[in-house]
Amino acid sequence: MIRASERAMGIEYAIRDVVLPARELEKKGVKVIRLNIGDPGKYDFQPPKHMRDAYCRAIQEGHNYYGPSEGLPEMREAVVQREREKNGVDITADDVRVTAAVTEALQLIFGSLLNPGDNILVPSPSYPPYVGLVKFYAAEPREYLTVEENGWQPDVDDMRKRIDERTKAIALINPNNPTGALYEKKTIKEILDLAGEYGLPVISDEIYDLMTYAGKHVSPGSLTKDVPVIVMNGMSKVYFATGWRLGYFYYVDPENKLEEVREAIDKMARIRICPSTPAQFAAIAGLTGSMDYLEDYMAKLKERRDYIYKRLQEIPGISTTKPQGAFYIFPRIEERSKWKNDKEFVLDALHEAHVLFVHGSGFGKAGEWHFRIVFLPPVEVLEEAMNNFETFMKKRLAE
Amino acid sequence: MIRASERAMGIEYAIRDVVLPARELEKKGVKVIRLNIGDPGKYDFQPPKHMRDAYCRAIQEGHNYYGPSEGLPEMREAVVQREREKNGVDITADDVRVTAAVTEALQLIFGSLLNPGDNILVPSPSYPPYVGLVKFYAAEPREYLTVEENGWQPDVDDMRKRIDERTKAIALINPNNPTGALYEKKTIKEILDLAGEYGLPVISDEIYDLMTYAGKHVSPGSLTKDVPVIVMNGMSKVYFATGWRLGYFYYVDPENKLEEVREAIDKMARIRICPSTPAQFAAIAGLTGSMDYLEDYMAKLKERRDYIYKRLQEIPGISTTKPQGAFYIFPRIEERSKWKNDKEFVLDALHEAHVLFVHGSGFGKAGEWHFRIVFLPPVEVLEEAMNNFETFMKKRLAE
Ligand SMILES: Cc1ncc(COP(=O)(O)O)c(C=O)c1O
Ligand SMILES: Cc1ncc(COP(=O)(O)O)c(C=O)c1O
Repeated sequence: MIRASERAMGIEYAIRDVVLPARELEKKGVKVIRLNIGDPGKYDFQPPKHMRDAYCRAIQEGHNYYGPSEGLPEMREAVVQREREKNGVDITADDVRVTAAVTEALQLIFGSLLNPGDNILVPSPSYPPYVGLVKFYAAEPREYLTVEENGWQPDVDDMRKRIDERTKAIALINPNNPTGALYEKKTIKEILDLAGEYGLPVISDEIYDLMTYAGKHVSPGSLTKDVPVIVMNGMSKVYFATGWRLGYFYYVDPENKLEEVREAIDKMARIRICPSTPAQFAAIAGLTGSMDYLEDYMAKLKERRDYIYKRLQEIPGISTTKPQGAFYIFPRIEERSKWKNDKEFVLDALHEAHVLFVHGSGFGKAGEWHFRIVFLPPVEVLEEAMNNFETFMKKRLAE
Repeated sequence: MIRASERAMGIEYAIRDVVLPARELEKKGVKVIRLNIGDPGKYDFQPPKHMRDAYCRAIQEGHNYYGPSEGLPEMREAVVQREREKNGVDITADDVRVTAAVTEALQLIFGSLLNPGDNILVPSPSYPPYVGLVKFYAAEPREYLTVEENGWQPDVDDMRKRIDERTKAIALINPNNPTGALYEKKTIKEILDLAGEYGLPVISDEIYDLMTYAGKHVSPGSLTKDVPVIVMNGMSKVYFATGWRLGYFYYVDPENKLEEVREAIDKMARIRICPSTPAQFAAIAGLTGSMDYLEDYMAKLKERRDYIYKRLQEIPGISTTKPQGAFYIFPRIEERSKWKNDKEFVLDALHEAHVLFVHGSGFGKAGEWHFRIVFLPPVEVLEEAMNNFETFMKKRLAE
């Protein structure tokens, strides 16, 4: 047998671990309510019409060629406009790079920044590729705590303790997946101060930036003076176009400390040719067009969030922090005597209540004894899921 | 300053080295005829209407969600159908993976196969990412010779000499970029025998498979008995959709020797979520639809190939092998006393004749003292380019 590489074999992906048992159950004819994947496109959300139309126009008008590896100039200009308006950042098109979604931005940034043995601070809990991709590049993801009692805000003292001479950056996910936390301006300032003290760049994942329920998202890009910040964003969440695989990132780096990293990223980007050309025309329409659709969609999401939060509050054995952004809720399992760990809990809920969650430990150490629920589906679906789950919990707690 | 990773800083990309001086010339108002990028979409070629329509339909009908990381079942089924017909391979949808173009297939395969210190046999000359990406993963690209006098066929004896205990695979590019070679069935059989002898898989890049001028492309996938073969292909060339970034690969592996590699590739694929969903609908239309458009397009390409070949034959100081596939021609510089190397030659032609070629050494050792011309533009453009180039050569040789 031909052997595979260690870097690839080492990749773990918790979300997958629970999908296989769900599939098996479904094969037996059981209807499983899947609340495990953060994909609005699977429910009643679509990218707005002006984006879909611009995409098709580009295809029919012949924009099907390879574009520049850094992205189309018009798209980079549209990002500048959008980000100036949203974050007040002082950037030009030259600071913007277009990518095959935020996923590719992470590949390019981590691949260009991290030598084997380096480390990077990532939130715990966090979106799994932050751990997986860093390890893929033979570097170490150091998980800093975010504090549930404090609305899952990052613990800046804990961050500080984890920095050493091999630390290359601090990563933020805000609004957060899986906790739904929205970070306070004060916290972000503290993080920038810490980064400045140690000469580290901040990498900011803002893919849910306009998806907040109360309070506005604050970007470190808008607050920095000298600390280099790389802001990532894309079409997948706020523009409801997950399947288009398009995103971008930009540098806010007044003192040009990222010069070499920028060069390395451009080298890596060139070898993969370019992101989708017609999809960039759709993105331009999205970035420069009306955001009116978002109001309706956020009203729907808020209704669903409020509903699931209310239901979870009434279910015994768990406790729940109210998410302030994104479309995830991350309850804590209080009654722990019935299960070995959160994964067993999630599998038990799958087999008994036929609802599919993801176990919190799949999102890192601080996720243990929690589980993530995606609240994208309509209230009727959430209602059925919560009914089943409530019955399940009451039964287990009575045992 | 924040330092970048060695793996990214080490990437070289010859095609870029000549673009910067061309841009500078253009900034001064000089019209440069660019014959450096293999992108049909920049000329009078477009993906066929049934593909463009299917793409738009998918977008408008709501196929904008994340798909499975291995690709949509329907697309994988369409690949099976296409490849059974073209290559007679005995595969199922389970053997097929969909990727963001052949570029991502290379990333997944090399990233999953190569540990640091491993090596892989790649053709010389070859498409540059074969060298660049292998080095990116801290492995060694070992260039085997292809022989100009023999229509740029691989030298199987040379291949054999380069294999050692750290060799993980043999890569083929057929039809070849940059030479336009089409490999003979006999050669492919010999390569399979060699691979079998050493227990190596063959990785076959067939992105130009239906783009041949005389003779048919033969895939190692159609000839193998026990040697595992990974075949890569995509929408960029034969389907004229470079900017869509969609491709695929499949395993022909009767003895399941790639079991672990497949697992590793799937792990890597999961962490990047999925390829574009609506683009896959376009690919399904392309893979299962009429190929009539190709006849016209190949007639145009053949006219252009015949024209440029004829012109190059008449120009002193160079010699040229006739390409049998793809849209590149790779002349040899016979008169070497006037330039230090092929790169100086290409820059001289740029500044004097205002035509942009790529220097052959950018494609590897065996490319030295050659240059690559893309013959995609219409004959009028090629005519102007060849007129300028001929004048330039005559002048230089008279000096
Ligand atoms: C925090 C975060 N970042 C990045 C991504 C990846 O998004 P994409 O690659 O679709 O842009 C996700 C997807 O769920 C996410 O939650
Ligand atoms: C031999 C070969 N392989 C792969 C590619 C990459 O193609 P894509 O990533 O567009 O599928 C090219 C592009 O020129 C090529 O010539």
